[in-house]
Amino acid sequence: MNYQNRQWIYVKRPEGRVGDEHYELREHEIDDVLSTNEVLVRVRYVSVDPYMRIQQAERNTYDLPHPLGIVQRAGTVGQVVASKSAGFAAGDWVLSYSGWQLYDKCHQNELTRLDPEAAPVTAALGALGMPGRTAWFGLMEAGRPRPGDTLVVSGAAGAVGSLVAQFGKRAGCRVVGIAGGASKCAFLTDTLGLDAAVDYRAYPTLDGLRAAIDAATGGVDIYFDNVGGMVTDAVIPLIKLRARIIICGAIAQYDGGLDAPDLAPRFLQHMLFKRASIQGILARDFTARMGEMQAVVAPWIKAGDIVTQETFVDGFEQLPRALNSLFEGRNLGKLLVRV
Amino acid sequence: MNYQNRQWIYVKRPEGRVGDEHYELREHEIDDVLSTNEVLVRVRYVSVDPYMRIQQAERNTYDLPHPLGIVQRAGTVGQVVASKSAGFAAGDWVLSYSGWQLYDKCHQNELTRLDPEAAPVTAALGALGMPGRTAWFGLMEAGRPRPGDTLVVSGAAGAVGSLVAQFGKRAGCRVVGIAGGASKCAFLTDTLGLDAAVDYRAYPTLDGLRAAIDAATGGVDIYFDNVGGMVTDAVIPLIKLRARIIICGAIAQYDGGLDAPDLAPRFLQHMLFKRASIQGILARDFTARMGEMQAVVAPWIKAGDIVTQETFVDGFEQLPRALNSLFEGRNLGKLLVRV
Repeated sequence: MNYQNRQWIYVKRPEGRVGDEHYELREHEIDDVLSTNEVLVRVRYVSVDPYMRIQQAERNTYDLPHPLGIVQRAGTVGQVVASKSAGFAAGDWVLSYSGWQLYDKCHQNELTRLDPEAAPVTAALGALGMPGRTAWFGLMEAGRPRPGDTLVVSGAAGAVGSLVAQFGKRAGCRVVGIAGGASKCAFLTDTLGLDAAVDYRAYPTLDGLRAAIDAATGGVDIYFDNVGGMVTDAVIPLIKLRARIIICGAIAQYDGGLDAPDLAPRFLQHMLFKRASIQGILARDFTARMGEMQAVVAPWIKAGDIVTQETFVDGFEQLPRALNSLFEGRNLGKLLVRV
Repeated sequence: MNYQNRQWIYVKRPEGRVGDEHYELREHEIDDVLSTNEVLVRVRYVSVDPYMRIQQAERNTYDLPHPLGIVQRAGTVGQVVASKSAGFAAGDWVLSYSGWQLYDKCHQNELTRLDPEAAPVTAALGALGMPGRTAWFGLMEAGRPRPGDTLVVSGAAGAVGSLVAQFGKRAGCRVVGIAGGASKCAFLTDTLGLDAAVDYRAYPTLDGLRAAIDAATGGVDIYFDNVGGMVTDAVIPLIKLRARIIICGAIAQYDGGLDAPDLAPRFLQHMLFKRASIQGILARDFTARMGEMQAVVAPWIKAGDIVTQETFVDGFEQLPRALNSLFEGRNLGKLLVRV
């Protein structure tokens, strides 16, 4: 049997924001003729993550640049359509790295089976997946939270930030989230139960933003940074003795600022005075330890003790615009495209 | 018996460079009437260190500001003139924190006896003292050097930098020193035996300086930073995977830049891509572990295996100008004033 496949091909590197013009939509027929241990997957959910924009840069960042002329890579959750693997049967839910396409022929080793009874299948792209791993190991290993610490999270309403904030609460920290807009801040305090939230959009100047964060925190023991830019400029002078700063992302710089960094006030003297540390972290370094995180976090999700907020966009054709929307801060929690 | 004491009183906070106008020279007679366990010390060598300029700032840095109206604090080496302590006799060499004055009455607990046979007494203000402690623990604890690592040291011809560079060589690192001027660079390669030296004054632009450091290093595993400013801007984008950056000082910022930080290119994305770390360190945190450093380093000094370069300035009246000269980079190794 044949299926109508659709693919977004990455064809042009963006200089600023990414959009439709950097992709080509292609369609072709795909058959279900499989080799031994092959599986045909129909993608149902496509993960949209800020790191994808980093890899679109021309220069080497933490990886080789994403090649032009191939399907945009992305994590995906889908269902098995046909299988020549003893491990997978039609209808099974699977996690794969199929990218922006509807159908993918995968070797069984590329697939992870998902149990829809244990957790919503999309959790494999969020709290039990790459964002969960980033949040868990970033906070626990680099942040070393202690009860009583004040933890500040930038991008606190995002996929990683919303988990970091909740993990911090469970570690006994006082947690202050920074996000853009009153509704996100209400989500942080009312839904996630954080101790305070600061709407960075309400403070157009560095001094004003710093004063607001200072008022909400009284000093910062741990800063988990997903954002960079002026928010980070505002937080760093507020660090306390032996503060830990975790650099997990710099979304404020992704649409151009990585290639031509803008200027910001020097801050290394604060690291000196406070004997503080900065640690850059990437999810990939903890891939081998995924099970450690899942063993702790999966029961919390099953019990409903952790809010796993998701924002869904419908329609395969929306993918480039969905990626761009990350940089406009439109999503609450994990952004997924239903295809 | 009475002695003619001279004191430099710190009377005015500098905004830029420090000089005579921020001090008052006072003279008064001091007697040798001592309480039990008191000792009268005649200071012979006064330590001049960059940290002194930090403490002159009005705001709180890592300590309360140095008060106005008192003797400028500083580490000193002197000789006992009179003693009511069983532990000290006239003529003994001692380390104390007597500051910028010729005579000081000290409790015996404020003094450390020095053995002139074991090492030159001035080593207590350099390689076996605060600078040695800073260099040793900063490099070993925060830098974690491995054989084969490329270590870059800024301010490499200074008191701390020249020790870090030599400790790095003994740890099996390839060591590249950064210093200002051809003669300092010749000292680094010819006298200290470093693998390469970069004269930052020869490269007026950031791109040029970065290219020179890149050519000399091929990438940086450990950056031990005493300087900050453009040198640091040039080094950070050259870090390798899991690089360790030690912030020990920022002498380029001390005469004004701490209060009104200038602007520099954002660099935190490099910490992310390379999963690198920054650690601020201060000598005071390792005071309790002084003996660990001395047990390793003192035999090297006795054997002549470590170059303990010193620059001497003669004359008590030279003290304010000697402090200022640190920021002009005039000293090679440890700067001491003979009084």
